[in-house]
Amino acid sequence: MRIVEILLVEAPHKPGYMAKVLGVIGEFGATVEGLNAVRRLDTDTIWEVTLEYDDVLSIEQLFEQINLLPDTFITGKSDRVFNRHKQGKIKTVSTISIDSLEILRDVYTPGVARVCQAIEQTPSKIKDFTNIQNTVAIVTNGTAILGLGDIGPEAGLPVMEGKAAILAEIVGLSGVPILLKEKDPLKIIEIVEAISPSFGAILLEDIKAPECFTIEEELIERVNKPVFHDDQHGTAMVVLAALLSATKQSNVDLKDRVFGQIGLGAAGMGICNLLLEYGVQDVVGCDLSIEAQKKLRSLGGKPLSLEEVMATADVVVATTGVKGLIKPEMVREGQIIMALTNPDPEIEPSVALEHGALFATCGKVVNNMLAFPGLFKGTLDADVTKITHPMKIAVSETLSSLAKDGALVPASLNKEAHKKVAEAVYEAAIKQKNEYL
Amino acid sequence: MRIVEILLVEAPHKPGYMAKVLGVIGEFGATVEGLNAVRRLDTDTIWEVTLEYDDVLSIEQLFEQINLLPDTFITGKSDRVFNRHKQGKIKTVSTISIDSLEILRDVYTPGVARVCQAIEQTPSKIKDFTNIQNTVAIVTNGTAILGLGDIGPEAGLPVMEGKAAILAEIVGLSGVPILLKEKDPLKIIEIVEAISPSFGAILLEDIKAPECFTIEEELIERVNKPVFHDDQHGTAMVVLAALLSATKQSNVDLKDRVFGQIGLGAAGMGICNLLLEYGVQDVVGCDLSIEAQKKLRSLGGKPLSLEEVMATADVVVATTGVKGLIKPEMVREGQIIMALTNPDPEIEPSVALEHGALFATCGKVVNNMLAFPGLFKGTLDADVTKITHPMKIAVSETLSSLAKDGALVPASLNKEAHKKVAEAVYEAAIKQKNEYL
Repeated sequence: MRIVEILLVEAPHKPGYMAKVLGVIGEFGATVEGLNAVRRLDTDTIWEVTLEYDDVLSIEQLFEQINLLPDTFITGKSDRVFNRHKQGKIKTVSTISIDSLEILRDVYTPGVARVCQAIEQTPSKIKDFTNIQNTVAIVTNGTAILGLGDIGPEAGLPVMEGKAAILAEIVGLSGVPILLKEKDPLKIIEIVEAISPSFGAILLEDIKAPECFTIEEELIERVNKPVFHDDQHGTAMVVLAALLSATKQSNVDLKDRVFGQIGLGAAGMGICNLLLEYGVQDVVGCDLSIEAQKKLRSLGGKPLSLEEVMATADVVVATTGVKGLIKPEMVREGQIIMALTNPDPEIEPSVALEHGALFATCGKVVNNMLAFPGLFKGTLDADVTKITHPMKIAVSETLSSLAKDGALVPASLNKEAHKKVAEAVYEAAIKQKNEYL
Repeated sequence: MRIVEILLVEAPHKPGYMAKVLGVIGEFGATVEGLNAVRRLDTDTIWEVTLEYDDVLSIEQLFEQINLLPDTFITGKSDRVFNRHKQGKIKTVSTISIDSLEILRDVYTPGVARVCQAIEQTPSKIKDFTNIQNTVAIVTNGTAILGLGDIGPEAGLPVMEGKAAILAEIVGLSGVPILLKEKDPLKIIEIVEAISPSFGAILLEDIKAPECFTIEEELIERVNKPVFHDDQHGTAMVVLAALLSATKQSNVDLKDRVFGQIGLGAAGMGICNLLLEYGVQDVVGCDLSIEAQKKLRSLGGKPLSLEEVMATADVVVATTGVKGLIKPEMVREGQIIMALTNPDPEIEPSVALEHGALFATCGKVVNNMLAFPGLFKGTLDADVTKITHPMKIAVSETLSSLAKDGALVPASLNKEAHKKVAEAVYEAAIKQKNEYL
């Protein structure tokens, strides 16, 4: 893992001194990301040096070497990433300024009693007079946090706060991290069901397979609100978007081709499921787990071995977490390959291309934050109780249509793209709602 | 209950027209709270008339009568209270502006992984790198919402959002409403315990007695974080503050006197408990429930009949919900009486004074929002796991010391008072922490 560190270095403002500092940094093996004069003293300058280095290196050795330089000292340091997480990344604010007794009496007692009674009499009024239709629970039990595995719910909170910060910044929704000290799927289902009245929708997050499948399926059944496991469907929507772009760019029709999924965890299963719903006829996949193979068959796909998938599929997506799993000699002429494991993919795109792939890419392009903010915004605005396949496919098609100049998907922070995704989801949801009527 | 309504009335701008409108409103029996010319047309003016009326009156009759006036029409109406609740009163915001890929990579992937691992290795770091020490769950099952009773958790959400808005505005804490679709105390305990990793502290709210006692006691036992049922202790702290002021003003020492509590629900039991902890020796109380009487005895108080309490006690507090329960002839010469049921007290203060009370007041002065914001701020800042009696007594003494000019407690929106309460709680908490060491 690459670590970011910011050093404050005091050096004389004479020619050549900072060159020496940067030289030492380069020899140590770190990359300089930024250099900034933060203060000029009488004879010295304090420089802020932002650098990145691999976590196998001992930064203390670098400090010693810089301090050995003539008249040059490290006067401070900080870690940009940790600084940006200090005291967390979200907070609850009041949307009304409570600065007079009249306002207090209206929004709290005695005024609030009438609003409570109105909701008691007409339950749907909760959507008009509370923030519930903008509120998304972000629920985890900490069993599959990022690629770090089961590190517990508390250690997952920075991720949940990150999701909440993204929801707030990108589409104005209120995310509420819920950390569960519980691993039993049935108990998780009961707890989430019991607290579900608090939220407009439920985003399940970083819960490991195969428990995540049961938990999501059962909660969709029991809770009359949108429930969605991002690790399964978030990644799937962005992968489908990227595949639509890649096949279009390669003049291939995705629906006609054999699709192969390598790794049938939460993400892999979600991808197979969405591709089948999209209309791909032949979906094959591999995983070491017998349970995963059975699940794939129940969805309509066919379990094969790794070698068979690589030999059969025209389009391959890998989400295994295993670096270098796909050997160069397995690549077929004309294959489209997305090796999504971060930071080290199942096969380097350049190697895949050398060995005959028509198109190859890695995980840096597939960021699931492209999907979930707009998906939830559109779903809550449409006031539907389920997130359906047509809504998910609308996300993928919109993302693909907005990709520019050979890119597979739009940039993650492109707000216009998120807005368009929300609109597409809203339209797909309303269309389905009308069909049910 | 008084209802606030805002009418938009179009009337010719000629002398006497608005006088007629106000005359009709007066005859109808409503009070005009505000009058504002919002738009001048060629020959007419549109007036915004804010009025209050009792809910037994039919506002439609007023509309008809105004429309009967020459050239005068109601062109619109709105309800100020409902307007102020539209789309709720809180939201989650990001405290960091995510507007560059560098920031996104630091606060989300890949940067967040290092913060997660730091918390995994050193769990206490969750307090440095997340918002958890500013986060308070506001938990209800909707069984005792305000004076409205069991109206369900959803109908209680406007109250929970109100508490969250107050926490945000007054002391900058993040309140998170949690509505529980559950009445079984054991299940509530399990659910709240399971979600407790998500929050720095837990505020139980509007849960009916006697279940609220078990729920609070057991959660304090199981969850290693501050757990606090506001209906019991919030009211109690403000009552003790008011009693300290009232006895000081009456030259009476509260600790020497017999204290009588009428009504032993959540609030009444909390008051008895806190007064005993404060050092009052003789506490008597009455309630129809045998269970409540037993509970009082277990705390160290003595159950009596209503008549006996009134005959024995020097200082009486009533929290029964029963208008006029205390008959004038029960009042003893020199008694201090707080009849707290809203809006109609157990005895009108003027009546109590006429019948010999030394001091009498009603529930308008006792607003529990004076206690909980500062209490939670001080507790979380001190990073202690329990809210103890000395911390609660610090709240009461601070509030009493800040009451001005014959008032019993400071004004609810006095931010300086809330800050002082937080500081007093912090000091009491740190003192206790040091004693344990």
